[in-house]
Amino acid sequence: MTESQFASGTSRRDFLRSVGVAGGAGAMFATMGALGLAPTAAYAAEKDTPFQAPRRSDFTLQGRTGKPAKVVVIGAGIAGLTSAYELGKAGYDCTVLEARDRVGGRNLTVRGGDRLTDINGVSQTAGFSKGQYMNAGPARLAQWMVTLDYCRELGVPIEVFTNTNADALIYNESTGMRAPVQYRTAKADVYGYVSELLSKATNAGALDSDLTAGDKERLLAFLKDYGSLGSDYACTGTEHRGYALAPGAAGTPGKELGDVPTLSEVFASNVGRYFSFEFGYDQAMLMFQPVGGMDRIPSAFARAIGEERIRTGAPVTDIKNTGDGVVVTYTQHGRTRTVTADYCIATLAPHILAKTAHNLGSAVQTALLAVRPSHASKIGLEYKSRWWEQDFRIFGGITETDMDLDHIWYPSYGHLGDRGVVIGYYNTGAHSDAYSALTPAQRLERALSQGVKIHGDKYRTELATSFSHQWKLAPYLEGAWHSMPGGPDAPAYAPLNQAQGNVYFAGDYLSYLDAWQHGAISSARKVVTELHQRVLAS
Amino acid sequence: MTESQFASGTSRRDFLRSVGVAGGAGAMFATMGALGLAPTAAYAAEKDTPFQAPRRSDFTLQGRTGKPAKVVVIGAGIAGLTSAYELGKAGYDCTVLEARDRVGGRNLTVRGGDRLTDINGVSQTAGFSKGQYMNAGPARLAQWMVTLDYCRELGVPIEVFTNTNADALIYNESTGMRAPVQYRTAKADVYGYVSELLSKATNAGALDSDLTAGDKERLLAFLKDYGSLGSDYACTGTEHRGYALAPGAAGTPGKELGDVPTLSEVFASNVGRYFSFEFGYDQAMLMFQPVGGMDRIPSAFARAIGEERIRTGAPVTDIKNTGDGVVVTYTQHGRTRTVTADYCIATLAPHILAKTAHNLGSAVQTALLAVRPSHASKIGLEYKSRWWEQDFRIFGGITETDMDLDHIWYPSYGHLGDRGVVIGYYNTGAHSDAYSALTPAQRLERALSQGVKIHGDKYRTELATSFSHQWKLAPYLEGAWHSMPGGPDAPAYAPLNQAQGNVYFAGDYLSYLDAWQHGAISSARKVVTELHQRVLAS
Repeated sequence: MTESQFASGTSRRDFLRSVGVAGGAGAMFATMGALGLAPTAAYAAEKDTPFQAPRRSDFTLQGRTGKPAKVVVIGAGIAGLTSAYELGKAGYDCTVLEARDRVGGRNLTVRGGDRLTDINGVSQTAGFSKGQYMNAGPARLAQWMVTLDYCRELGVPIEVFTNTNADALIYNESTGMRAPVQYRTAKADVYGYVSELLSKATNAGALDSDLTAGDKERLLAFLKDYGSLGSDYACTGTEHRGYALAPGAAGTPGKELGDVPTLSEVFASNVGRYFSFEFGYDQAMLMFQPVGGMDRIPSAFARAIGEERIRTGAPVTDIKNTGDGVVVTYTQHGRTRTVTADYCIATLAPHILAKTAHNLGSAVQTALLAVRPSHASKIGLEYKSRWWEQDFRIFGGITETDMDLDHIWYPSYGHLGDRGVVIGYYNTGAHSDAYSALTPAQRLERALSQGVKIHGDKYRTELATSFSHQWKLAPYLEGAWHSMPGGPDAPAYAPLNQAQGNVYFAGDYLSYLDAWQHGAISSARKVVTELHQRVLAS
Repeated sequence: MTESQFASGTSRRDFLRSVGVAGGAGAMFATMGALGLAPTAAYAAEKDTPFQAPRRSDFTLQGRTGKPAKVVVIGAGIAGLTSAYELGKAGYDCTVLEARDRVGGRNLTVRGGDRLTDINGVSQTAGFSKGQYMNAGPARLAQWMVTLDYCRELGVPIEVFTNTNADALIYNESTGMRAPVQYRTAKADVYGYVSELLSKATNAGALDSDLTAGDKERLLAFLKDYGSLGSDYACTGTEHRGYALAPGAAGTPGKELGDVPTLSEVFASNVGRYFSFEFGYDQAMLMFQPVGGMDRIPSAFARAIGEERIRTGAPVTDIKNTGDGVVVTYTQHGRTRTVTADYCIATLAPHILAKTAHNLGSAVQTALLAVRPSHASKIGLEYKSRWWEQDFRIFGGITETDMDLDHIWYPSYGHLGDRGVVIGYYNTGAHSDAYSALTPAQRLERALSQGVKIHGDKYRTELATSFSHQWKLAPYLEGAWHSMPGGPDAPAYAPLNQAQGNVYFAGDYLSYLDAWQHGAISSARKVVTELHQRVLAS
């Protein structure tokens, strides 16, 4: 079936819609499949209500020739940059005010020489080598995320972020594990026993009321393969677990990792708790990162917007709706200044905005205060050698623990090189707060003392330099993401989802992908669309 | 516990050995874990009998000053190049004879302008754009493979090869699937029903003789999470399946893919047959590739060996053991030439060596003929756009089918760019042979007619150029890998696992990793070690 068969007044989309109406989404999906479209279902569906960037021709087509509206954008994070970038395409006169000394907001890449001071006045200067960096904030992009469209549009090259690695480790100290175990081994054991148990129940007839004879046959064949079971459906260990001695030349068949733990031991170790991570819509491999650091994205945005439109080191102190516009007051270089504009897009973190003077009303203030910041932190450990590659054969990915460091990330760039930056903790909530209460030196010591339990002495002895970043303590941000019971469309946040006078609100917190740049961009696009439609209708 | 605690005559390795002897491998593994070594078990174990490259000092330490031995290496594939490279480190005078016009053997990267002629005289010239290529032979490296050590040693940069992708597709035409399905959806459904069934049997007490109360509790908690089950342990579909409309800004919560197929439908579709692939010791992510093409490895080997030592376009016609060395006859530029050397390492494919005149005896000839070549092939399809990224949001990875194209590979490089090369089929055995019987134009048409079933019209309309490569038809190779019942140490192959006079045999077929460069390198290292020890003892 080809496009041409939909000639004579029926477009392909109309055809698909008619099938959808007649047969439900399932029939529509199957039919799309027959057309070779099925896997694009999610993306195609998005295109049914695509974002349409404002264009200059939107005005000229209306016969307008007047001066475009002026917009002040508060915050040069991803939501603010997206807003200014998209409005700029239609000629809006945008000014971006950013409190911090650089664009990006929580999209923060720390490199050698960067000096950051926290809200307590504690400063650290990163000593990372040339080419080494840590993404202190967002670090990964899913294939379906709109962020990748901006990478394409803005010319930001990407590479794989290694979110899952069969050779990375799991170490649950609290369950009494005596040693870390590779993901591949943990999966082989858990999946092996799951398969053995289900085979047993199936063969015993315990599921006869659920399974036809054909189902049983196919299920058992699947389980044998999936669980790598023996002919008697027993889990006794195979090469899925890994090797104690890798296979090589003739005479060296290798030696499979032996001593399969018992079923009770496997489930008591709780290694399986990490397996569903990779099934998440947002976290499943493949994931990606910009080559050279996540801040390549805000840098590219800033260039496209025009650096001259962005004022950094310019914290906002007051936001006022006026009769026909907005007046935003900020300080810069010790002076108080104002920007007068037709509209404002406020992309500050809601708990920061709540601390800023404004005349947006008590309903807005109540809504802002209903959003609570959540905490997260990372420490970058630069090592003099890539011992995790050379000694452990781990080329990227994440080791999971139940210790207060939560996650260890191995770098997804610079493989086979001389040095690399390991994320020694990426932790959240109480674990993050515990480290925030320490000095940078104490954080490092605590991270090292945990890491050596997994990786041994080199975790300490090969260290060159480190840098810790606690979002709770970051000026003008004071949080990593948000706690919003009920989601962004809950009634408590309704005042933020519509313009208040001439002021709009945008940010990842006003999306279903809080803490993801996709959420910030989606929210910005929504507000840009609303503002532009209002201007066109005015 | 630190290194220093093993002072006073007991090395760490001795300590570990003693624990191993006393407590078995399991105790040893656990103890190594306590030392922070557990995850390096496989690698560390290899180090117990490490490969020691020949060194010049091996001779001088013996007080020798004579001329180093002369070695002729037949074949500039990975085994031959490794042999010459490692022997060269000790000053051996190596000459490499290669029948084809380039080094690498089956490590073959095809770029624009490359002209290859098959054994039937059929030529193709690749029309790929600058920067585009296909790895016609090996294309991926596992983290544990020794190949990566050579990438480090030779300065070959690597990047991730995207062997598994949750957003790639499965399409089993023969099971009546009406549309391809994303891996993530297929996994969600299979794992969901497996979890539901095992929960049911567990809750019904069908496994009470196998599970303690604690086991049951932990197993059920795992299954609920792993299978994304509801509170009643039912598989009814969650975001693990994916979205029909991706979540975005407030007001756009997204729409999960609906219409969960029944258990019978899921297992009848046989999508689960592909899931164990990623548990293989050789195939589990993360996998890697050299940046710019797999042939960066043989190119780097050749530079390190010295291009002047390698003679290409030089097929060998005769191999003779003499009393004190070897005489190898070859042709080059239409002339017959000979190389006289002390030793020979023959790395030709065994079925090709069997067709070459030699005086190695009938036992060798019988052993060579006992190895049968296996077939595989690939077609590279260069497209004018990266429609798989833009329309399908697939940034690399493999789509699996039960059609005769077997696998479709999306490129692991050049993301977000203008063009890309999709591997339109990577097939083996009878499927490969079916395509080998066709002309290049017929192969392309067949591959396209299959691919459009999955990807729709753009699979045909966006095509720019193509190149098909059938290993069965490749001169001087005539195969992709080998069929060797019983493995390389089976008695049938014994004559090839030892020197015959002054002639040694090496190649991936004489390893436990046939078809992998790791196997070829391991085999070469074994032979290099044997040859060098013999020279040192002489």
